[in-house]
Amino acid sequence: MSEKDLYITEVALRDGSHAIRHQFTIEQVTSIAKGLDQANVPYIEISHGDGLGGSSLQYGLSLTDELQLIEAAVDAVLNAKISVLLLPGIGTMHELKEAAKLGVKMSRIATHVTEADVALQHIALSKELGLETVGFLMMSHMVPTKKLVEQAKLMESYGADTVYVVDSAGALLPHQVKERILALKEHLQIHVGFHAHNNLSLAMANTLVAIEEGATRIDGSVRCLGAGAGNTQTEVLVAVLDKLGIKTGIDLYKLMDIAEELVAPILEKPQEITKDSLVLGYAGVYSSFLLHAQRAAKKFGIDSRDILIELGKRKVVGGQEDMIIDVAAEIAKNKESAYV
Amino acid sequence: MSEKDLYITEVALRDGSHAIRHQFTIEQVTSIAKGLDQANVPYIEISHGDGLGGSSLQYGLSLTDELQLIEAAVDAVLNAKISVLLLPGIGTMHELKEAAKLGVKMSRIATHVTEADVALQHIALSKELGLETVGFLMMSHMVPTKKLVEQAKLMESYGADTVYVVDSAGALLPHQVKERILALKEHLQIHVGFHAHNNLSLAMANTLVAIEEGATRIDGSVRCLGAGAGNTQTEVLVAVLDKLGIKTGIDLYKLMDIAEELVAPILEKPQEITKDSLVLGYAGVYSSFLLHAQRAAKKFGIDSRDILIELGKRKVVGGQEDMIIDVAAEIAKNKESAYV
Repeated sequence: MSEKDLYITEVALRDGSHAIRHQFTIEQVTSIAKGLDQANVPYIEISHGDGLGGSSLQYGLSLTDELQLIEAAVDAVLNAKISVLLLPGIGTMHELKEAAKLGVKMSRIATHVTEADVALQHIALSKELGLETVGFLMMSHMVPTKKLVEQAKLMESYGADTVYVVDSAGALLPHQVKERILALKEHLQIHVGFHAHNNLSLAMANTLVAIEEGATRIDGSVRCLGAGAGNTQTEVLVAVLDKLGIKTGIDLYKLMDIAEELVAPILEKPQEITKDSLVLGYAGVYSSFLLHAQRAAKKFGIDSRDILIELGKRKVVGGQEDMIIDVAAEIAKNKESAYV
Repeated sequence: MSEKDLYITEVALRDGSHAIRHQFTIEQVTSIAKGLDQANVPYIEISHGDGLGGSSLQYGLSLTDELQLIEAAVDAVLNAKISVLLLPGIGTMHELKEAAKLGVKMSRIATHVTEADVALQHIALSKELGLETVGFLMMSHMVPTKKLVEQAKLMESYGADTVYVVDSAGALLPHQVKERILALKEHLQIHVGFHAHNNLSLAMANTLVAIEEGATRIDGSVRCLGAGAGNTQTEVLVAVLDKLGIKTGIDLYKLMDIAEELVAPILEKPQEITKDSLVLGYAGVYSSFLLHAQRAAKKFGIDSRDILIELGKRKVVGGQEDMIIDVAAEIAKNKESAYV
C-alpha cells in the first residue's frame, strides 16, 4: 500500500467534543489543529460532537460557537483539510453553507444506518459547494450487511465520494467489520471508510481489519478523545501502521507530542473502558439510553444492564426512548413471576 | 469451543501491582479475590509485580508482605486457584515452597524468552510440590518464532503443563501472535497460553488471534490494571468472548462490578496509552529502560524515543542498561555529523 492510499481523519476536535462536554476554546482548537497540520494529518474534523448545529440543551451547549472554532482551525492549518460533520435533522443546509464559506474542504453527512435517504439533499448541496463529501452510516452494527450495502449505495447514488461504516456504539466484532467492508468494496465504486469506538477494546483490531479489507479512509482521535470509550487512538494507529509497513505520511513523534502535551491536559476524565462504556458496546445501544435505563432500573428495582441488553436485542433506535420504561416494566414483571 | 476449553488467569493482583507501586493491602486483596472467585474466575495470580521476592529497592518495595497477601487470597476463595509468578534470579525456590505451603495451586516460572534453561530447577520443584506449572516466556517478540519454539520445548521438557507467549512490552502485532501460537500448537503437546500488554492498543486483538489459533490459557486484568498500558481488560474480554459464543463460565456482571467498584478506586493513574507506554511498545523494549533513556537524552540533547527505538533494534535486554549511554552518545554524534 503506497503512502497515498490511506487517509486519516482526526476527530478529536469533533467526536472528542463529547468527552469534554463541548467546552473547546478557540485557543485549544488553534493549537491542536496547528499541531496536527504540522504532523501532516490530512483531514481534521471540527464541529459540535453531534455535528453542525448540535449545540443545544438536548445535545449539550458548546462553550464556543462552532463556526468560530472552524474558522480558527481553517486559519491555523497550511495543508490539512478541515472537515465538518452534519446530521440532517440536527444541522441544516444553512449551517453547511456557512461552514463552506469559512473554508471547510470536506463535509460528512451522517444518518442512522437505515436512513440514508434523509441525506439526499445534504450530499447534493455539499457537492454543489465543491466539498469532498462523505456519507457516514451510524450504528452500522444494527443491520445485516445486505441492508448496509443498500444504504451505502443510496449515498453513492446521491454523489458521496466516500461511504463510512460507523461503529457508533463500539459494538462490532472483527469478523463483522470484515464482512461489511468486503461487501462495500465489492458493491461500491467510491472510497470506503471506517470509524471505530473502543467500548469493547476492539477499535484498533477493527480498524486494522477494515484496512486489510480495503478501507482507505480511517478515523482516529488523538489520546482516544471521543465519545464512549473513545475512538481508535490516532498516534497509536500511526505507530502500528508504521510497524506494519503501511505509510500514512504522518509524523509519529509530532503526533505523540500533541497527544501528550496538548490533548491529555484538557481531558476531564480518562478515556478508559468503564462499566458504562462496556455495557453500551456489549448491548450495542445509543449512549443516550444509559441515563434513561439507569433511572428506569432504579424505579423497577432491576439491573440497568438487563434493560440495555434487551433494548439492543430489539434494535431500539434514538427517538424511541419511551420504550425504555416499557422494557423495564416487562423485565421487572418477568422477574417477579419467576419468583412465584 | 466448550466452556472448559478456555481458562482465564486474572493478573490484576500481580501485574497490576506495578500500576499501584506494589501498595496492595490485605483488605484490597481479600475483597478483590473474593469477588473474582464469586464471579467464577478460575485462576487468580498474586505476587509482587516482578514475582515472588520482587519487593526490593531495585524493583519497588511492597507495602504488604506478599506471603500475607497470598494467604489472604487463599483464604478468600472457595473455588478459584491462586497462582504465583516466579522469576528465577529474583525469587528463589525457598519462596516457592513457602507459597505452596500457603495453599497456592499454580506457579508460573518466568524467564526471558532466550533463557528457558534457568527455569529447569524451578519447574521441577513446582511439579514436585504438586502445583500446576506454567513456563512464562517474557519479551516473546524479541526472537524469531523458531527460537521461541525451541525455548518453549525446553520448558515442556522440564515438566511444564503450559507454556505462555508473553508480550511483555506490548510490541507484538496480530500476525506475529498468530505465527507464534500456531507454531507452539504444532510443536508442543502441552497447553499454550498468551499474555498481552496494551501499549499498541492491540491487547484484545492479539488475545482473540491467540484464542483463534488454539491458545487455551489467557491472561487478563480487570480494569486493565497492569504494567505499561495494562493487559487485556478481563471484563471486556469476557464480554467479547460471550458475543463470539465462546463461554468462559465467568459471570460478566459480577466482573464488571468488581472492576468498577473495587479496582477503579485504587488506581493511582488511569490505564491510558500515554506517550511513554506507546514508545515502549513501538520500540519493543523493557519499561525499565525508559527513565535511563530520558536521562541520557537530556544529557546528549537528543530525543529519548530515538534511543529507545535503537535499543529495540539492537535487542538490548535487561541488565544491559549500560548500553543506553553508549547508544545515546552514538546518536548524538551521528546527529552532529549530519549537521556538518
